[in-house]
Amino acid sequence: MAATRRSNSDGPARPRLRDARRRMIEGAIESLRVHGASATSVDRVLADTGAPRGSVYHHFPGGRTQLITDALATAGGSMSEFIEAITRDNDPLVALDMFVALWRQTLIDSDYRAGCPIIAVAVETNDDAPEFAAAAAAIFARWNAALTDLLTRHGLDPARARRMATLTVAAVEGAIALCRVERDVAPLEDTIGELQSHLAAAIGASTD
Amino acid sequence: MAATRRSNSDGPARPRLRDARRRMIEGAIESLRVHGASATSVDRVLADTGAPRGSVYHHFPGGRTQLITDALATAGGSMSEFIEAITRDNDPLVALDMFVALWRQTLIDSDYRAGCPIIAVAVETNDDAPEFAAAAAAIFARWNAALTDLLTRHGLDPARARRMATLTVAAVEGAIALCRVERDVAPLEDTIGELQSHLAAAIGASTD
Repeated sequence: MAATRRSNSDGPARPRLRDARRRMIEGAIESLRVHGASATSVDRVLADTGAPRGSVYHHFPGGRTQLITDALATAGGSMSEFIEAITRDNDPLVALDMFVALWRQTLIDSDYRAGCPIIAVAVETNDDAPEFAAAAAAIFARWNAALTDLLTRHGLDPARARRMATLTVAAVEGAIALCRVERDVAPLEDTIGELQSHLAAAIGASTD
Repeated sequence: MAATRRSNSDGPARPRLRDARRRMIEGAIESLRVHGASATSVDRVLADTGAPRGSVYHHFPGGRTQLITDALATAGGSMSEFIEAITRDNDPLVALDMFVALWRQTLIDSDYRAGCPIIAVAVETNDDAPEFAAAAAAIFARWNAALTDLLTRHGLDPARARRMATLTVAAVEGAIALCRVERDVAPLEDTIGELQSHLAAAIGASTD
């Protein structure tokens, strides 16, 4: 977003630098997804992306902490936008179907190597960078808010809707990890099927 | 277990070596819980536990891979025994209460620094040690089997019981991660409350 806002004042050299920043952020997100937070270093991302080392000092003066923080903001932002879009325009069961379809594809396309970059941060206590956990909490809260809003629109009282949203985020995150170690999408399919049955019962009861 | 079986032939020097092995495994489990898999190195565990470096070569000739594999076996074994005990002797809602009580305590006692050592491995693709994922999958499968058995005893058909067990394991694992970043047990309480309501409805319907 900052890059877009600054674009009018950028000279001809800037697009390459912006491109290096984008590549490094995408590389950091991919590394978080596959290898987890501790394994995501500036050196690994430089090696994976081929970005010039100078771009680190230019775009990420805060080093690894800033690289990961920016990666979380980018990944969390686009995942949140997806969740907000599908929860705005669909009923809860369809929204869950769309969510699981995306994850099924991510798991299969990556041969079960890639998971969620946000959970990667959430299962590690980073004493040097408490901002990682704070960023993850804010992203999970944004997903929870979108789901809570969807469920209240379908008749659940706000407290129940929020609890159900928490269950959904927790269960999907856990199921993705189960799929990775089982190398199978069945845990996600089973989890979503049960979540849908639970949601359908709650929504049905609230509209009786 | 191996140490117990060998104890009759152990000379006086052995208890110290066994003690070093135990300390290193406990240190590795703690490191997995707090810092995750990539951050769990032989050096870190030696520093954290004060175990002599010679004990690594003696007890873990396979180095870091063996240390983590043995830590997963120990942690997974004792967690599985706990789950098998509470699912054998209690109804499903009580078993979930006991499970959440243990996790609530672990989260609070560790000031939200410690999570599940198994999920730590499951969210990282370890190309050098695919046995970590296989070990995690086997442990999750053992938990799933205990829960499936409990739920079939309470009237669910085996396929439904297995799906419900998958949802439970996934949701609890995800909820623990949410608790860590929120520094609050509310996500776990909310998740367990909804799981219990879903389980109660399924069991009630199956016995109608």
